[in-house]
Amino acid sequence: MKQEIHSFTLKSSQYTDIIDITEKANQFIEQAGIRKGLFTASVPGSTASITTIEYEDGVLEDLKNAIERIAPQGMKYDHDAKWGDGNGYSHVRAALLKPSLSLPVEKGHIMHGTWQQIVLMDFDSRARNRNIIFHVIGE
Amino acid sequence: MKQEIHSFTLKSSQYTDIIDITEKANQFIEQAGIRKGLFTASVPGSTASITTIEYEDGVLEDLKNAIERIAPQGMKYDHDAKWGDGNGYSHVRAALLKPSLSLPVEKGHIMHGTWQQIVLMDFDSRARNRNIIFHVIGE
Amino acid sequence: MKQEIHSFTLKSSQYTDIIDITEKANQFIEQAGIRKGLFTASVPGSTASITTIEYEDGVLEDLKNAIERIAPQGMKYDHDAKWGDGNGYSHVRAALLKPSLSLPVEKGHIMHGTWQQIVLMDFDSRARNRNIIFHVIGE
Repeated sequence: MKQEIHSFTLKSSQYTDIIDITEKANQFIEQAGIRKGLFTASVPGSTASITTIEYEDGVLEDLKNAIERIAPQGMKYDHDAKWGDGNGYSHVRAALLKPSLSLPVEKGHIMHGTWQQIVLMDFDSRARNRNIIFHVIGE
Repeated sequence: MKQEIHSFTLKSSQYTDIIDITEKANQFIEQAGIRKGLFTASVPGSTASITTIEYEDGVLEDLKNAIERIAPQGMKYDHDAKWGDGNGYSHVRAALLKPSLSLPVEKGHIMHGTWQQIVLMDFDSRARNRNIIFHVIGE
Repeated sequence: MKQEIHSFTLKSSQYTDIIDITEKANQFIEQAGIRKGLFTASVPGSTASITTIEYEDGVLEDLKNAIERIAPQGMKYDHDAKWGDGNGYSHVRAALLKPSLSLPVEKGHIMHGTWQQIVLMDFDSRARNRNIIFHVIGE
């Protein structure tokens, strides 16, 4: 059994930028030389999340609209009243959607569907350099 | 340390079908011969998710109603406008609820509560044959 | 490669009590003597969840308000009609937010951000003694 960790930085723009990291994830698995195991992607920080979605413009817009309904940007947030950060909605979205995702690996590939991509969602109110962490354990 | 992967197919019906997979999961752990470790269940595809809930008719209905409030079926979705799939709401629900779940294993059992079952939620607009993946690593 | 499991009990109060368990989690990693690996926190039971958030009063209130919008306490729930438990909303919240979270570990620390804490959210309608499970695998 072995494991590998890899960190890299991604430039994201504000307001629920959704970035496809699937190819980077599968390259990481290949370089780690792991054929079977468990893969985890995570994003340190309180205003971003990892999930999967079909990476298609229409449904990405639909997801952004749903997130806007759940934690609207135009509402009053106590976080903003206290700290003036203006990104209270980003914190709430990230807490609901969580910073990580784990998926099994088989035959050297992460077991996602053909029309299912692993994505970073950046909810912050300004462009960021995001540190993404990949971990895999297996053999 | 050892690991095991197991795939199987489940027939699901449309519109947030919620299927209890707890017994299958604990049988998998037993067959893998792992007493202590980390268990992961995942469903490849962009219109289904894994979570836990007390598998009781009333609360299953309550969960379906909450999901309907978060991403209503009757709304207009860009995904449907572009592709005519009619399941934009299913994609949004699955992206919000994510395709996997990991839980510790001890004494040969997944550490869920007595009234807490591991479930597949199928959000798609048609019946599906779902491929479920179980992974465990431990000893 | 080695692994460790640790269980402990936490007193929580009702109505979305949010408790910071980050320090306990990092102490667990240190005692396990694991420098690099995968950490999982989970809470057995159908009315609580684990996530991350900046542990700051304002944003904790904002998260509670968002959860109240998603699964309002004042609504009618089938679970309550059937069982009279009065905590149907707690079950729905926990199913949506899930009972566990996994994060990579490097240099002996869980890879969360500086202003990002690991938290238990207890959604139940009465004070509870919650059993929290920590698992880590690595070396």
